[in-house]
Amino acid sequence: MSPTPTTRNIKALVFDAYGTLFDVTSITERCDHFFAGKGAAITEIWRTKQLQYTWLGSLMSRYRSFWEITESGLRYACNSLGLTLTKEIQDDLMEHYYILNCYPEAPAALKALSAKLPLAILSNGTLKMIESAVKHNQLDSYFSNIFSVEDLGIFKPSPRVYNMAVDGLDLSAKEIGFISSNSWDAVGSKAFGFHVFWINRFNQTEEELGFSPDHIINTLDDLEPLMG
Amino acid sequence: MSPTPTTRNIKALVFDAYGTLFDVTSITERCDHFFAGKGAAITEIWRTKQLQYTWLGSLMSRYRSFWEITESGLRYACNSLGLTLTKEIQDDLMEHYYILNCYPEAPAALKALSAKLPLAILSNGTLKMIESAVKHNQLDSYFSNIFSVEDLGIFKPSPRVYNMAVDGLDLSAKEIGFISSNSWDAVGSKAFGFHVFWINRFNQTEEELGFSPDHIINTLDDLEPLMG
Repeated sequence: MSPTPTTRNIKALVFDAYGTLFDVTSITERCDHFFAGKGAAITEIWRTKQLQYTWLGSLMSRYRSFWEITESGLRYACNSLGLTLTKEIQDDLMEHYYILNCYPEAPAALKALSAKLPLAILSNGTLKMIESAVKHNQLDSYFSNIFSVEDLGIFKPSPRVYNMAVDGLDLSAKEIGFISSNSWDAVGSKAFGFHVFWINRFNQTEEELGFSPDHIINTLDDLEPLMG
Repeated sequence: MSPTPTTRNIKALVFDAYGTLFDVTSITERCDHFFAGKGAAITEIWRTKQLQYTWLGSLMSRYRSFWEITESGLRYACNSLGLTLTKEIQDDLMEHYYILNCYPEAPAALKALSAKLPLAILSNGTLKMIESAVKHNQLDSYFSNIFSVEDLGIFKPSPRVYNMAVDGLDLSAKEIGFISSNSWDAVGSKAFGFHVFWINRFNQTEEELGFSPDHIINTLDDLEPLMG
């Protein structure tokens, strides 16, 4: 194990949203309401396809918004499980993306960090999706900026996406601490040049993509002690 | 069901390699030799990660060859299952990528098709990987061209990859019949403009990516009757 890299030069923290601040599995209960006993399976396939479609759509140069892609992922999940997704159920479940729960430690952790340095969000979501979830969890006051890929028409881990934070915060990549629970996002942002914290919340295997995060932590609570 | 599109204008057939001509799960037995009872799990995670890494590496603008990515996928698979992958075992399993079995119907189906029109391969693999597997299965005489992404530095479903066949065969996209068992490849090639045959060999759910293949068939044997 190499010594922990110093965080002294970090001037702002930028957070991924889904899986990092907001728990996409918090929608499981609502899925179970419509499809008893299938909630966990739906949520897992839904998330897997949602991510795959961001990568594939980007590579195909056929951008569709994260909202549309999330709808497509839900349709795939239900089709693959042989479940009939009516328009009413689809709309109900999609609406829940606006009110996803944040992880329980998020409010206090963000409050403590925001007293030390500026915080921002950089997400695949549409601005409306991100702002709704932030507001629903009363996290608005902690963030100085919210960056959505919406205007770019491409998703993470394209370097163009990470560069939005460099431009928007007027900082160099290495002055930005980037936090994600998504292993591939942690790797992609590291390849771009951020100082990266991977929250390995789900005890996942590290990716073999040629880059490693600077820090591997367990929850958002582990950030503040590292920030000096 | 809309009527089957005419194949009258197709002037050449281009095949995906892995999963379409060659059975990547034919390596399971060798995995089981080293890790008893784990062969199926290794092969599945290995393939999933191999594909993910082609998409992620392409989006990160960090190209590594399909050989390197395949090695990375194998390492991830073993790590995630808590298995110790020695250099010897890694090299042995990787060598098997040169001698993957083709699907049983491939030789006769390709022979019949090659009597009707030119056949080619368009694959993520390195030229060495593709040529070795073709030769091992004695399929060399059926293909006029083999196109590898190697020179482009990006993987499917980038339109730049599919365009290699347009340039190399001097045909328009719609004059090319493209055959893949990979649902996302069938969709990506359709978005590009090919006339697409999806071999749904594994009874998968159709992707929700905004494009659908022209034909859905079960095996390579179903192609020849469609070619008039």
